[in-house]
Amino acid sequence: MSLLVIGSVAFDAIETPFGKTDKIIGGAATYISISSSYFSKEVALVAVVGEDFPQSKIDFLNSKGVDTTGLQIKEGEKSFFWSGRYHNDMNSRDTLVTELNVLENFDPIIPQEHSSPEFVMLGNLTPQVQQTVLNRLSNKPRLVVMDTMNFWMDIALEDLKKTISMVDVLTINDEEARQLSGEYSLIKASRKIMAMGPKFLIIKKGEHGALLFHQDEVFFAPALPLEEVFDPTGAGDTFAGGFIGYLAKTEDVSFENMKRAIIYGSVMASFCVEKFGTERIENLTQAEIDARAAQFMALSQVDLKIVERG
Amino acid sequence: MSLLVIGSVAFDAIETPFGKTDKIIGGAATYISISSSYFSKEVALVAVVGEDFPQSKIDFLNSKGVDTTGLQIKEGEKSFFWSGRYHNDMNSRDTLVTELNVLENFDPIIPQEHSSPEFVMLGNLTPQVQQTVLNRLSNKPRLVVMDTMNFWMDIALEDLKKTISMVDVLTINDEEARQLSGEYSLIKASRKIMAMGPKFLIIKKGEHGALLFHQDEVFFAPALPLEEVFDPTGAGDTFAGGFIGYLAKTEDVSFENMKRAIIYGSVMASFCVEKFGTERIENLTQAEIDARAAQFMALSQVDLKIVERG
Repeated sequence: MSLLVIGSVAFDAIETPFGKTDKIIGGAATYISISSSYFSKEVALVAVVGEDFPQSKIDFLNSKGVDTTGLQIKEGEKSFFWSGRYHNDMNSRDTLVTELNVLENFDPIIPQEHSSPEFVMLGNLTPQVQQTVLNRLSNKPRLVVMDTMNFWMDIALEDLKKTISMVDVLTINDEEARQLSGEYSLIKASRKIMAMGPKFLIIKKGEHGALLFHQDEVFFAPALPLEEVFDPTGAGDTFAGGFIGYLAKTEDVSFENMKRAIIYGSVMASFCVEKFGTERIENLTQAEIDARAAQFMALSQVDLKIVERG
Repeated sequence: MSLLVIGSVAFDAIETPFGKTDKIIGGAATYISISSSYFSKEVALVAVVGEDFPQSKIDFLNSKGVDTTGLQIKEGEKSFFWSGRYHNDMNSRDTLVTELNVLENFDPIIPQEHSSPEFVMLGNLTPQVQQTVLNRLSNKPRLVVMDTMNFWMDIALEDLKKTISMVDVLTINDEEARQLSGEYSLIKASRKIMAMGPKFLIIKKGEHGALLFHQDEVFFAPALPLEEVFDPTGAGDTFAGGFIGYLAKTEDVSFENMKRAIIYGSVMASFCVEKFGTERIENLTQAEIDARAAQFMALSQVDLKIVERG
């Protein structure tokens, strides 16, 4: 089924304990599109770049089956640029540079042929822009998934809450869930956040996995313990892309199927962190994805016999 | 099968954001014994207390089926006492008081009838005392599980390594695994630690669950997301007690069965943190334990269909 992806398409420069990159392509929508393209063949992108963005990278997205009709290229302007440095534990980072550039006045124009998507993934962006996208759709989508971050909780909380009230699934990390709800217990936090509108909540815990909440149900998906996390940039977006890509492919938005989708999201994220930027997820094979999904199953599945005391 | 439990039997005084206790019973061996008693009827305790330790609490342990023949009561001496205060996030705590008392010169005397146990659980204690227990056994046990903590890594590393080399399963938390191995990646840490002797390693991650390592295999058991963690004291010991109690009961030390044992350990720990000290685990029913085990299964089990791309 058709999937519309909105978010940043950008340049990143990344430093980790393992090395540093020059400007490489990044941005939430880039990771989401690439990741979801392994599941759905109907991925369309709405985003904006400057004239500095290489045509070869757009060609690459097209080669993955991503429709870039909705990717605006602004003459005489520059693409969004982010630069960051990860600390030794890879769980925290410092932002070195943020240049909004074309994102400053991003007006998300949705091509006519993509204005009735069945699935929508709102990658991290100004809540106002995310909202505009939803308001410009011709039909109510079957499922809207929204990613966001603490930055918008700090500077645009009311806008953010309004947008959250319009979506079906919200994905945030554990610290953000605590900030948004004012609750330390993730169970209590999940209830408060679902009361804001979303019927489903995904709390991402990085190396500790992810939780899916829906009504009184909880599902926990582990993260694969890795030899080495090389670069965490884009892992959350890659997770979201695998998640919604799987749902769009299987056309099933039940809780049970979302559990599977979260495993595939985690599978895609586990590849992402193995190399810098999008490098590792650019050319995966179906066999690699299936093999890693099998690893996730081995990691967490158990046949439990309930024993009698005696 | 017979299970010998060694560790502290003590008094604790605990402060959490939810309140504080007077002196209540605590100690690793107390939690381990109570927890394992729900699975095995052949639990025997080797420990030491002072004359201040209430007979009613020893009677209580006996009522759970725990044999206390090996519990020494030192006339004119006082029991080990620990007092601590948890921070708001419950993940860190300050030790306010540690009085070793009878533990200072603890000579673990193993009653003749308990000197050939099939399973041994070395609760957290001086590594030298843990070692002495193993040296005093008449036969090599089927499985020895050892718990320890960072304190011994700081002050008695060589003794600790010697004891670790003598056991089958080591349980430590993630920070301790990193300290002991000098590796941040838990996969790398697990390899280095298993090279020290233990064929199995359990890394406890508190609210983030637990990992079981064996050769190249990994299993991940989630922790149950709870409304409220009321008091984390003894959770790790209660986990260990459920783990080894289940193994002793089922008489199966395969990796596959250890996966089940870890789920039951997590089940027992999830009860422990719901009230102060041992209160919540003192009078559980088999039905409560089974119901919670079912919750753990619902939390992490998924029927994954490998999809074809298209």
